[in-house]
Amino acid sequence: MEIFERLESEVRSYCRGWPVVFNEARGSYIYDEAGSPYLDFFAGAGSLNYGHNNPELKSKLLDYILGDSVVHSLDAYSVAKRDFLQIFGEVILEPRGLDYKVQFPGPAGNNAVEAALKLARKYTGRETVISFTNGFHGMTLGALAVTGNSMKRGGAGVPLNHAATMPFDNYMDGQTPDFLWLRSLLEDSGSGLDKPAAVIVETVQGEGGINVASAEWLRGLADLCKEYDLLLIVDDIQMGCGRTGPFFSFEEAGIVPDIVTLSKSIGGYGMPMALTLFKRELDVWEPGEHNGTFRGPNPAFVTGTAALDKYWRDDRFQKETVAKGELVEARLKAIAEEHAEVGAHARGRGLARGIAFEQPGLAKAVCREAFDRGLLMETSGPEDEVAKLLPALTTTEEELERGLDILAEATRAAVKVPQPA
Amino acid sequence: MEIFERLESEVRSYCRGWPVVFNEARGSYIYDEAGSPYLDFFAGAGSLNYGHNNPELKSKLLDYILGDSVVHSLDAYSVAKRDFLQIFGEVILEPRGLDYKVQFPGPAGNNAVEAALKLARKYTGRETVISFTNGFHGMTLGALAVTGNSMKRGGAGVPLNHAATMPFDNYMDGQTPDFLWLRSLLEDSGSGLDKPAAVIVETVQGEGGINVASAEWLRGLADLCKEYDLLLIVDDIQMGCGRTGPFFSFEEAGIVPDIVTLSKSIGGYGMPMALTLFKRELDVWEPGEHNGTFRGPNPAFVTGTAALDKYWRDDRFQKETVAKGELVEARLKAIAEEHAEVGAHARGRGLARGIAFEQPGLAKAVCREAFDRGLLMETSGPEDEVAKLLPALTTTEEELERGLDILAEATRAAVKVPQPA
Amino acid sequence: MEIFERLESEVRSYCRGWPVVFNEARGSYIYDEAGSPYLDFFAGAGSLNYGHNNPELKSKLLDYILGDSVVHSLDAYSVAKRDFLQIFGEVILEPRGLDYKVQFPGPAGNNAVEAALKLARKYTGRETVISFTNGFHGMTLGALAVTGNSMKRGGAGVPLNHAATMPFDNYMDGQTPDFLWLRSLLEDSGSGLDKPAAVIVETVQGEGGINVASAEWLRGLADLCKEYDLLLIVDDIQMGCGRTGPFFSFEEAGIVPDIVTLSKSIGGYGMPMALTLFKRELDVWEPGEHNGTFRGPNPAFVTGTAALDKYWRDDRFQKETVAKGELVEARLKAIAEEHAEVGAHARGRGLARGIAFEQPGLAKAVCREAFDRGLLMETSGPEDEVAKLLPALTTTEEELERGLDILAEATRAAVKVPQPA
Amino acid sequence: MEIFERLESEVRSYCRGWPVVFNEARGSYIYDEAGSPYLDFFAGAGSLNYGHNNPELKSKLLDYILGDSVVHSLDAYSVAKRDFLQIFGEVILEPRGLDYKVQFPGPAGNNAVEAALKLARKYTGRETVISFTNGFHGMTLGALAVTGNSMKRGGAGVPLNHAATMPFDNYMDGQTPDFLWLRSLLEDSGSGLDKPAAVIVETVQGEGGINVASAEWLRGLADLCKEYDLLLIVDDIQMGCGRTGPFFSFEEAGIVPDIVTLSKSIGGYGMPMALTLFKRELDVWEPGEHNGTFRGPNPAFVTGTAALDKYWRDDRFQKETVAKGELVEARLKAIAEEHAEVGAHARGRGLARGIAFEQPGLAKAVCREAFDRGLLMETSGPEDEVAKLLPALTTTEEELERGLDILAEATRAAVKVPQPA
Repeated sequence: MEIFERLESEVRSYCRGWPVVFNEARGSYIYDEAGSPYLDFFAGAGSLNYGHNNPELKSKLLDYILGDSVVHSLDAYSVAKRDFLQIFGEVILEPRGLDYKVQFPGPAGNNAVEAALKLARKYTGRETVISFTNGFHGMTLGALAVTGNSMKRGGAGVPLNHAATMPFDNYMDGQTPDFLWLRSLLEDSGSGLDKPAAVIVETVQGEGGINVASAEWLRGLADLCKEYDLLLIVDDIQMGCGRTGPFFSFEEAGIVPDIVTLSKSIGGYGMPMALTLFKRELDVWEPGEHNGTFRGPNPAFVTGTAALDKYWRDDRFQKETVAKGELVEARLKAIAEEHAEVGAHARGRGLARGIAFEQPGLAKAVCREAFDRGLLMETSGPEDEVAKLLPALTTTEEELERGLDILAEATRAAVKVPQPA
Repeated sequence: MEIFERLESEVRSYCRGWPVVFNEARGSYIYDEAGSPYLDFFAGAGSLNYGHNNPELKSKLLDYILGDSVVHSLDAYSVAKRDFLQIFGEVILEPRGLDYKVQFPGPAGNNAVEAALKLARKYTGRETVISFTNGFHGMTLGALAVTGNSMKRGGAGVPLNHAATMPFDNYMDGQTPDFLWLRSLLEDSGSGLDKPAAVIVETVQGEGGINVASAEWLRGLADLCKEYDLLLIVDDIQMGCGRTGPFFSFEEAGIVPDIVTLSKSIGGYGMPMALTLFKRELDVWEPGEHNGTFRGPNPAFVTGTAALDKYWRDDRFQKETVAKGELVEARLKAIAEEHAEVGAHARGRGLARGIAFEQPGLAKAVCREAFDRGLLMETSGPEDEVAKLLPALTTTEEELERGLDILAEATRAAVKVPQPA
Repeated sequence: MEIFERLESEVRSYCRGWPVVFNEARGSYIYDEAGSPYLDFFAGAGSLNYGHNNPELKSKLLDYILGDSVVHSLDAYSVAKRDFLQIFGEVILEPRGLDYKVQFPGPAGNNAVEAALKLARKYTGRETVISFTNGFHGMTLGALAVTGNSMKRGGAGVPLNHAATMPFDNYMDGQTPDFLWLRSLLEDSGSGLDKPAAVIVETVQGEGGINVASAEWLRGLADLCKEYDLLLIVDDIQMGCGRTGPFFSFEEAGIVPDIVTLSKSIGGYGMPMALTLFKRELDVWEPGEHNGTFRGPNPAFVTGTAALDKYWRDDRFQKETVAKGELVEARLKAIAEEHAEVGAHARGRGLARGIAFEQPGLAKAVCREAFDRGLLMETSGPEDEVAKLLPALTTTEEELERGLDILAEATRAAVKVPQPA
Repeated sequence: MEIFERLESEVRSYCRGWPVVFNEARGSYIYDEAGSPYLDFFAGAGSLNYGHNNPELKSKLLDYILGDSVVHSLDAYSVAKRDFLQIFGEVILEPRGLDYKVQFPGPAGNNAVEAALKLARKYTGRETVISFTNGFHGMTLGALAVTGNSMKRGGAGVPLNHAATMPFDNYMDGQTPDFLWLRSLLEDSGSGLDKPAAVIVETVQGEGGINVASAEWLRGLADLCKEYDLLLIVDDIQMGCGRTGPFFSFEEAGIVPDIVTLSKSIGGYGMPMALTLFKRELDVWEPGEHNGTFRGPNPAFVTGTAALDKYWRDDRFQKETVAKGELVEARLKAIAEEHAEVGAHARGRGLARGIAFEQPGLAKAVCREAFDRGLLMETSGPEDEVAKLLPALTTTEEELERGLDILAEATRAAVKVPQPA
C-alpha cells in the first residue's frame, strides 16, 4: 500500500475507511487481493445498481471489445450510440410519455449538471439557480455552487455565486409550511432574490444524509416552478436508474422535470457515462457549444443498452426493488428502535437507505465495525451522521438479510464503546 | 440516422461533418457500418495516440474483464490502480525527476483542470488565474473561465470571472517582446491585475489553432512564474502522452510545471480517465475535498498501464513520433507552398499539425473534401481556419503518406471552388 | 419646466409626482416658485429631521462661510471636523457607552454602506453578507447587492453577488419562529450558505415599506450574530438621528452593533455627509485604503455640530419625537380603520410612519391627492403600497394635525375613485 | 489633535502628511489654526479649481442661504437646479455641440462612475468594462473594479470582476503600437475577452501618476470604440472643469465620449456634487432606477452655476490655464533637469502637473520638505513616485512662481538626504 501513500494525493478518502486493496468483484461481493470477500452495500455510490460484473452486461461488453468495435467516438455517430438511443427512447422515454432530447455532456455526473445549469441559464437568460440545503451536485465550479457541503465548497478557492439555497423537505421544524419562504421570495419584488433561471433538486439526497423529499413536496415544488416560470432540474444521478424503485426517482411524484441529469448506473457496468435530458423546446444549444472529449464512451453505451434491455422492459425490476426496500426498511427500523438512546432513526426510499444517529461519531464507528465484519457501507450527511446503504438492486434477499445482520451487530458493537465527537 | 436527429440534442457537432455511423476501428482506420474505411487523422481529438483497439492493450483489457476484476472502485485502493501508479512512477515520473503527487480528479479532462485550478487557488489564497488567447481547457464553469472561445464562453449563461487573458506566443505583431505586457502588470502595483494564483497554458494550442509555443517562450513564462511566485499549470491533456514527441510536451523546454493535467490518451484505449499532477508540497487537499464518482476507472487504469509499459520504457516511441512529425511537416509545407495564394501555411510540432488558411471557410472545405476521399480531419482555431491533423502516433509512415496524399488532393479540390465566408 | 424634460435624464423620479419647481423652504414648509406652500411630510427622505433651514444651524453655517473657513479639506484635519468629532464623542458616543471609531467614508449614505461592507469583509476574511427582504442600502454596486428591490437591482447590469437575503421581522406567516431559517443555515455545515462576514439590517425599513423590527427580533438577531461570530451592521441612515426617537434607532432594543452607518440628517441641514462607525477593534483599515474626494464637507460638519449641540444634549428631543409619533400613530390608526375595506393599516415607529393599502395603486393615489391639497408625502414598499410619512422631527403638533387632516381627506378622496392596478 | 487620533479611523491619510489643523482659506492659501499660511498646490485634489472661498461664488451662496432657499430637494425640481441646467446647457453643452442628457447620480464622483457603468451595462446588455493601468475611478465596489491600485482593490474584501485592464498610453516600452493588444482581443473571437460594454478612461491619470494620454491615443481609442461598438466613458472628475485648459479635458483630442463623469470642481466651491452625462439615445433609465438621497445639493448648484457664469462664458479662462500650465511646465522641466541623477522628469498637461522621481521615496520626501516650507502638495502614482501639483486654476502667476521656488528648494533638500525605499 506504500505506493498509494507515496504517490497518491491526500485528497483520497474512501481508501482511508477500507484499508485493503480490492481486486475482484461479482454481484454484491467485492474481494480484496487476499481473496477476502466483502458484501458491498455501497455499490460504487450507486454506480453499480446491477451488481459488479453483471454477467449479461459483461458478455455484451466482451463481444464489443473482441469485435474491434469503436471505443471512442467523440460525438460522431456510432452503432453503439444509436442502439443506446433506440432503447432509451423505446424502453424509458416513450412508456413514460417523456418527450426529452438527450445530451451526452461528458462522462461524469458533474458534466451532466454543468450542462443542465448552462442550458437553463442560456434558455431563460437568468443567472440564479435555486438549490437546497444539503444538496450535492458535483465538484466542478458550476456544480459546486449549488452543492451545500461547506468543506467541499471551501475547496473552490473562489466565492461560489449565482445560486441561492432553500430548505429541503422537512428541513426545519416540521411546522413551517412547505415553500412558505421560497414562495414569499418569488412573489415579492423587493425580496432580494433575483428571478431564478431554475431549481435543482434531488428527490432523495444521497450525499446529504438520505433525506427523502415526499411526493407532495416534489409536486409542490413542480407547481411553484410552473407558476413562477422556473425550470425544474431533477438531479437523478444517484437516485435514478431504479435506485428508489422506478427508473426515474421522480416518477412516484407524478412530476415531469424540465431537465434531468443521469449518470452513475446509466452505463450499467460502472464505466463513466452521463446524460442530460431536457424537454424538446429547451434544446437551444448551438452545435458544439458544450463539448468534451469523452462524450462517446461506446463500451458504456453497450453495457448501458444491455442493462436497459434486461431490467427495464417491464416493471418487475422496479417492483422487486420496492419490495427489497421494504425489507430493508423494516430491519433498519428495528435496529433504530433498539438504539433509541443514541437517537437512531431509519431513513430512505427504495434501496437508498440509512440510519441516522444523533450521537456524533457513531455512524462512522458503525461503518468501521461493519467493515471489520465484511460489510462495506459509507456515512453521509454534513456531519457524517448517517450510516448509508446503497446495495446493488440485484442483491438477493438473502444477501440483504445477511448484510443487515452484520449491520445490527456492528451497531451494537459501536454503541458499546464511547465515541469521540 | 433518424434516431439521432430525433433524440439527440442539437449540441452534437462532429457528426455533422461526418454523416455516417461508425462501427469498427483498428489502428489508424475507422469503418462505418457499411464497412467503408476512413483513415483517421483525428484520433479522438488526441485520445487514441496508440490507435484504435490497440491489440496489446485490448488483450489486457479483455483479461481484466474476463477475470471479474473490479471495474468501479471510486477512490478505494485497487490492484489496477496500484499497477498504474507503480508504472507511472517508475516509467514516467522518476526518469524525468518529477516529484509529483497524483490526483485522480474524475474521468474527464475538465475534471483535471477544475482540480488544478481549485488547488492553485486554495494553495495560494488568491483567485485570478492567467490564461492565454485561444487557450482551451474545458466546458465546466471553472475550466470555461480560462478558455478563450467566445461561442463556448457564451454558453455559460453567467459571467466568467477570476481569470485574465494574456497573449500566447506569437500572438501579436512579432515585434512586441514576450511577456512585456504580463510582466508590466505583475510589476506594477497599480496595474489593475490582482496578483494571480497561477498561469494555465498549453504548449501547443490544439483547439485554438495548432498554435505552437516555442521552448524559449515557455522558459520565459516559467521564469516569470518563479519570479512572481505564481504557480505554473501546464494543461497537457491534448499535447501530453507523446503527442509532440516526449511524454510531456513541456519536456523539450526543460521546464517543470507546478501542476500538470493529463487526460485523453492517458487511459490508452479511449476510455475516460484523467490525472492532475502537482509538486509534493502543493498537496494541501483535505481528504475528500474534491471527489467524484468515476475516479477509479479500473479498465482505463489497465489499458493505461499497458500503454506505458509498451511505449514508454525507452525513448524509441518518442523518436519515432518526432521523425513522423518531420515527415508530416515537410509534406504540409509543400501543400502550403502550393497554395500560397490562399494564405496557406503549415503549423505544429510532433504529430500535432495543421495547415492554416487565410481564406475564410477553406479549412472546413478541405476537411469536407478529405472526408469524401476517406480521410477524417477536423478544423480548429477561433474561425475554424486550420485544417488539423492529430493522427495516432502508431500510424505508419505509409499511412501518413497516404493520408497526406489525400489531404493534398482535398486541398486542391477545395481551393478550386469559391468558398462562402 | 421644459429645461428639465430636455436636459435631465429620465431617471428623475420625485419630480414626476410633484410637478412644481421648489424655491424656498422654512421649517416644515417648502414653497414652489409661485409661493404656494407645501407641508413637507417627506423631509428629504429623512435628511431634514431638524426642518428646512433651521435658524440656529443656518446662523452657524453663515458664520462659517462668512469667515472664509475651509470648505473642502479631504481628510486633512480641520477645526470644523474637530468640533464635530468632539461633540459627537461627548454628546452621542460617551453617554451611550459606545466605544466606536468614526470613519468619514464620503458624502453619501452609499459611501457609508460600502465602507461598512468592505471593512466587515476585510476584518473577517469572509465574503457573504446577510441582508433582509425589502432592505434598502444604496445604489452603488456593493450596497445594491444587499438591497432587495428588483427594479433597482436590475439596473446593475451585472449579477449581484456575495449576499444572501433572509426574512425580515414579520415577513412570513406570523407563525414561523424568528431566525428558524437563518439559524438552521448557520448551524448546518451542509446548508450551502458560506459562513457570512456580517449581517446588515435596518431597524425600520423606510424604503421597504415602513416595516418595523421589534426590539425582541433585533435582540435575537444580535444574539445570533454573537453566537456565530458575525458582525452586526445597523444601517441607520434613514432611521438614525432621532427619526424613531432616540439618536440611534437601535437603542430601544438595547443592542450594540459592531458597525453603524449614518447619513441623511447627520449633517443637520440637508447637505451631503455620512459616517461609518465601528467598534475600536475593527479599525483594521490601512491609511487611505478607502478614500474619496468629499470626506471633509466642513459646512456639513458645522451644521451637524450645531444640531447635536441644540437637540441632543439631553433627552427632551427624543421624548418629544416619541410623543409626536404617538399622536401620528393614533391618527393613522383612525384613518386605517375608516378604510378597512381597502386593507388599510398603520405602521411605523417614532416619526417614521405609514399607511399600507392592500388595494394596488391606492397609496400612490393618496399621495397624489395629498399633493393636490398641499401635503408632500411619498410611497414606499416594493409595490408602492405604503403612503409614507417622514415629517421633520421639529414639526409642531399643530402642523402634524394639519397634515394628518389633509391625509385623512386625501385618503377618502383616493378611495372613492377606482384605482388602476 | 488627540481627538482625531482617539476617534477617527486609521483610514485617514492626508492628515498624516500635514499634521496641522486647518481653519481658514482664501484663494490659493489655506491657514492652520495658528494662522500659518500654506500655499495650496493641491486644491482639494482638483475640487477647488476656482480657489478657496472664491468671493463671487461665496456671495451667491450666502444669498441663497440667507434667502431660506431650499437646500435639499432629492430629485424634485428646484429653481437652483433649473438655473444650473440652464447655464450648463447654454455655456457648456451647446457651444461644444454636445447633445448630452444630464444625470444627478449622487454627490460623489464614485456615484457618477457607478451610474455610468450601470448605464453602459444596461444599455449594451454586456458586463465587461475595459479600464486602464493606473486608472482611478473610486472606492465603491463598481468603481473599484475599474481602479488599478492594488492596495485599494485589496480593501474590497471580495474579488473585483467584470473588468479588464489594458495598457494606458505610453505604458510599455514605447515601441508597441497603441491598441495592438486591445484590438487583437476585440478582433479575435477566441481571445478570451468577452465583448465589453464600455471603456472607461481618464485623459490624464491624476491619482495614477499624472500620466498623460496624447490626443492621438485618445482619438485612436475613440475610433476603436466606434469600430467595435463599445461605449466610451471619459471619467473627467479630476481633469474636467478646466483642469487641463478646456472645460472638458477631452476637447483637445476632438473626441465625443458617449458618457462623461464630472464631479470635484463642478460645484465650484468644494461642496459635494457630481454629474453623469450621456448621449441622448443612451437615456434608457427607468424613473428611479438609480437613486440616492443627495442628488439635489442646491447650494452646490448655486455655486456651480456662479462658476460657470464667471469663468466659462468665453475662452479667456481656458487660455489662462494653458498659459499658466506652460509656465509651470518650464519650471518643472528645469527642476527635473537639475535632478537628472535621481531620474526626475516632468509630466502633465494644463495645471495637472508633476515631477516623477525614479528614486523610491523621493517624491514623498519632496512633499514633506515642501510642507515644511509652507507648500501643500501630494504624491501620486502606484509607488507614490510623483510629486503632484494641482494648483487652483485661479492661482496667480506670482503665486505659481512662489510655489515653484519652494518646490525647487524642497527638491534640493530632499535629494540631499538618502531616502528609505
